[in-house]
Amino acid sequence: MSQESFGDGDLRNTGMRLKHDREWDYELDRIVDAVCQRDAETVGLQFPEGLKRRGPKVVDDLRDRLGEDVTVMLSGQPCYGACDLDTYLMRRTDVFVHFGHSPMKESEKIIYVPLFSNVEVTPIIEEALETLEPPTETPDLGLVTTAQHMNRYGEMREFLEEQGYAVHSRRGDDRLTHEGQVLGCNYASADLPVDQVLYVGGGKFHPLGLAMEHPEKHVVIADPVNNVVTVADTEKFLKQRYGAVHRAMDAETWGVIFCTKIGQGRWEEAQEILASNDDAYLITLDEITPDRLRNFDVDAYVNTGCPRITTDDGPQFHKPMLTPGEYRIAIGEKPLDSLSFDTFHGTW
Amino acid sequence: MSQESFGDGDLRNTGMRLKHDREWDYELDRIVDAVCQRDAETVGLQFPEGLKRRGPKVVDDLRDRLGEDVTVMLSGQPCYGACDLDTYLMRRTDVFVHFGHSPMKESEKIIYVPLFSNVEVTPIIEEALETLEPPTETPDLGLVTTAQHMNRYGEMREFLEEQGYAVHSRRGDDRLTHEGQVLGCNYASADLPVDQVLYVGGGKFHPLGLAMEHPEKHVVIADPVNNVVTVADTEKFLKQRYGAVHRAMDAETWGVIFCTKIGQGRWEEAQEILASNDDAYLITLDEITPDRLRNFDVDAYVNTGCPRITTDDGPQFHKPMLTPGEYRIAIGEKPLDSLSFDTFHGTW
Repeated sequence: MSQESFGDGDLRNTGMRLKHDREWDYELDRIVDAVCQRDAETVGLQFPEGLKRRGPKVVDDLRDRLGEDVTVMLSGQPCYGACDLDTYLMRRTDVFVHFGHSPMKESEKIIYVPLFSNVEVTPIIEEALETLEPPTETPDLGLVTTAQHMNRYGEMREFLEEQGYAVHSRRGDDRLTHEGQVLGCNYASADLPVDQVLYVGGGKFHPLGLAMEHPEKHVVIADPVNNVVTVADTEKFLKQRYGAVHRAMDAETWGVIFCTKIGQGRWEEAQEILASNDDAYLITLDEITPDRLRNFDVDAYVNTGCPRITTDDGPQFHKPMLTPGEYRIAIGEKPLDSLSFDTFHGTW
Repeated sequence: MSQESFGDGDLRNTGMRLKHDREWDYELDRIVDAVCQRDAETVGLQFPEGLKRRGPKVVDDLRDRLGEDVTVMLSGQPCYGACDLDTYLMRRTDVFVHFGHSPMKESEKIIYVPLFSNVEVTPIIEEALETLEPPTETPDLGLVTTAQHMNRYGEMREFLEEQGYAVHSRRGDDRLTHEGQVLGCNYASADLPVDQVLYVGGGKFHPLGLAMEHPEKHVVIADPVNNVVTVADTEKFLKQRYGAVHRAMDAETWGVIFCTKIGQGRWEEAQEILASNDDAYLITLDEITPDRLRNFDVDAYVNTGCPRITTDDGPQFHKPMLTPGEYRIAIGEKPLDSLSFDTFHGTW
């Protein structure tokens, strides 16, 4: 049995060394049909970072079927999640295809191609049984997964029920498309009356967010992509957050980041901070990167955009970056032990 | 006399170690007037990278004058030139101020604050006389400068005429606002019947572009900011370009970059390449950075966007990046000695 404890707080580049070859169904028929129906002259394709290298081959396949009158374009904008919709390309193409993420909100303009994984999930869940508390002691079990494995959610549930678990699940909120689905910024599907949750999916990015959001639950990770079972360990991650909060306590000036991406704008949160702090300055941008903030002369940042930029990429920025909740701790408005994970609810 | 020859082809980070303190006139009165006239509730400010650190202080000054009902925002988008207009913030604020670049095209919506430099120019031009060919031998002299020093263009001309030069100048084309002005991508103001050109301004970025665009002219740089006189030397720079072209000659697949920024879209240029090359793939994006292109699986890039990304940042990308003209050399459509600088004409 391959069991190891990561728990090192480094959530970047996980799931990159794959143990399984994965094949994807790009649903070319559905795209070609849409092009014909709309008499489209331009088609825009947007892939997540990990699949951008497949882009030219998918363009080749579409060109073969569509002929020379249709121009197919690839989005070069960064794409890490459903928020990263390339609205520029979407508005300027007759058919726009977003691969690999489920929609936060349906739009007639956009074709969402989910790219379900073809990796088997039962073998790794079987391994995870040794790490889960047994159904005889703790029968209630929450079950969550990511968009890539949603196509096998029923199979996961059935297998676990056969082992004797009472499997709990819910859809979460409007931000989530499917029952049992988690996003990097939303774990409402794990708001369940259970003490342990099984996460089935690749990488540590999602389950560590889940464990931060639900610190009272035992979170077991069954990763069918890297073929490992682990327990989510938030200790190092939490130390980083407390470290950032403490470093920001002496800050005299604050940059309040408002992210202009679809699904990330928390305008009222930003306005509240500005209204109560004369030394806070509103900074608007789309991609939040260390390079882009380097030239601003402020002592610390509070990021009202994607919480995963703050928590996962935070140490790469030249000044401490906090979530809105952490900001309130740093300025003394809230006690230190109120530190919690920053999540997003609602849609764009 | 401080004279040294740079000519090292590295155009980045020039003009950063300043020998003069510079003060800027942010024209707050003009901004406050516009806010009052338009009864504005929101004001957006966009600074070039080198002045972003002054942003919070300018916000303080505006808040003092405007009161609490007006929300002032800073653009966090990268800003290196007039093309980098933050159209998102512009559309969503009642008054939008773009500092430090002259407009490519006037717009009622935008207040352009030029930020003229307060640095004296005559002393460094006097030093440059030793490097220029004397007026007794070569009386005709072209004179160009950047937006920052346009306010002293008349003073420069007068001084040179007093020395005996016949000073030539022209406005260039629609992309340029002022007579004698150069942009990083446009040196039409130096299309003059002269053998030598004096560039007065900070850094090597502009004069090296100028020397590349006009290789037959003797280009002398009088830099009043770093207080040095040099001669533009394009040798190392040209070697880099030839190196990139040669590395790209074996490329089987090409990424054709179309930049979505205002003033940078050369759609027909991109379409022509796609139409004549089955192994070329159109990639659309706003900021062209090495990180954003790393995941695409192509052998080389041809960039129809900002030529200075290609020529100055090119070596930082993981695959060779060429200008459209260099691409035609690499695929054998044009001879090697046709290599020339890529410039932009027209407006957005």
